[in-house]
Amino acid sequence: MAEMPRTARGRATRERIVTAAAALIRERGVAGSSLDDVIERAGASKSQLYLYFDDRAALLREVIAQNAELVLQVQEPHLSSLDSWKAIRAWLDSLVQLQVAGRGRGGCPIGSLVGQFAETDEQARRLLSDSFARWEQPLRQGLCSMKKRGKLDRTADPDRLATATLAAIQGGLVLTQTRRDPGQLAIALEAAYAHLRSHAA
Amino acid sequence: MAEMPRTARGRATRERIVTAAAALIRERGVAGSSLDDVIERAGASKSQLYLYFDDRAALLREVIAQNAELVLQVQEPHLSSLDSWKAIRAWLDSLVQLQVAGRGRGGCPIGSLVGQFAETDEQARRLLSDSFARWEQPLRQGLCSMKKRGKLDRTADPDRLATATLAAIQGGLVLTQTRRDPGQLAIALEAAYAHLRSHAA
Repeated sequence: MAEMPRTARGRATRERIVTAAAALIRERGVAGSSLDDVIERAGASKSQLYLYFDDRAALLREVIAQNAELVLQVQEPHLSSLDSWKAIRAWLDSLVQLQVAGRGRGGCPIGSLVGQFAETDEQARRLLSDSFARWEQPLRQGLCSMKKRGKLDRTADPDRLATATLAAIQGGLVLTQTRRDPGQLAIALEAAYAHLRSHAA
Repeated sequence: MAEMPRTARGRATRERIVTAAAALIRERGVAGSSLDDVIERAGASKSQLYLYFDDRAALLREVIAQNAELVLQVQEPHLSSLDSWKAIRAWLDSLVQLQVAGRGRGGCPIGSLVGQFAETDEQARRLLSDSFARWEQPLRQGLCSMKKRGKLDRTADPDRLATATLAAIQGGLVLTQTRRDPGQLAIALEAAYAHLRSHAA
């Protein structure tokens, strides 16, 4: 049974292994990332790997968790206050800018794993699902707040609007990654924003 | 150098290998599908595999091509005439029905491969990109026709609207696959349809 490291050095090694695995998967996909590749990149040993992770699946789940943290962190401070049209617009624009900076490579660090895990690892699927829920939540809260303050139509459904917006983000990222064109996400998010605004009070 | 089979029997074997690989990848992802698994499921031999495919990458590209054909075929007759609001609505509803029938499993046979290939195989990425272009084209054509006939606003851009709709489909499928909930695609496509309709003339 794998254990959590008790020393700072152990924790650093464990995190380095997860980071190395995440980077490899980003570059080569799950299929192209062997455990040997991971420990080589992490500068770790196989015994360290198996000290901290029960098996390959356990390591891959840590990659999902780490990617989710990164995705949410990189969207701060936007996610903390999505309670005005200006804030929502600035958040969506920042997502496009990230893709421009990355030249449309890599796709969503969460979404691009769905096709690789959802049918094969139920625990991983749940982790991915939880990650999307955490991502969706700030927009839903912001829209609820706007509804209370009379900025959003009384008939608007913040849950559905937040889900539709996350779908536009995910689909825009799939098309951006496939076409190497951040403009694809820009088009998807322009439509998503227009749809949100159509519910302005 | 792999060759195309000259006999009907050879063609059937080649196709059986591609179909077996596609099914395995659907169930287990690329990472979980070995060539040994493929030939076992196809009831073929390794020598037959290497007679028709140069390497694993070549077989995987055939899987992408076959999946694209299936995705487009299953959307007929809708894709042949997306030139009215009623036709567009019926098409989007049919996509949701497919997910209901499949209990939200599997995701998009094209989109779910993007994360597995786009960063590792440039030829595969182009194939995926071509597949999306073929998918997008019928809606663009339908919207162009509607614009000419005064059903769509003169300022509306069929290219951008078609891309935004495909993004909603892809993102809705990512969320549906992750959450095992066809309602996610329904929400995404309701928003996409409302956005299209906001450009009605």
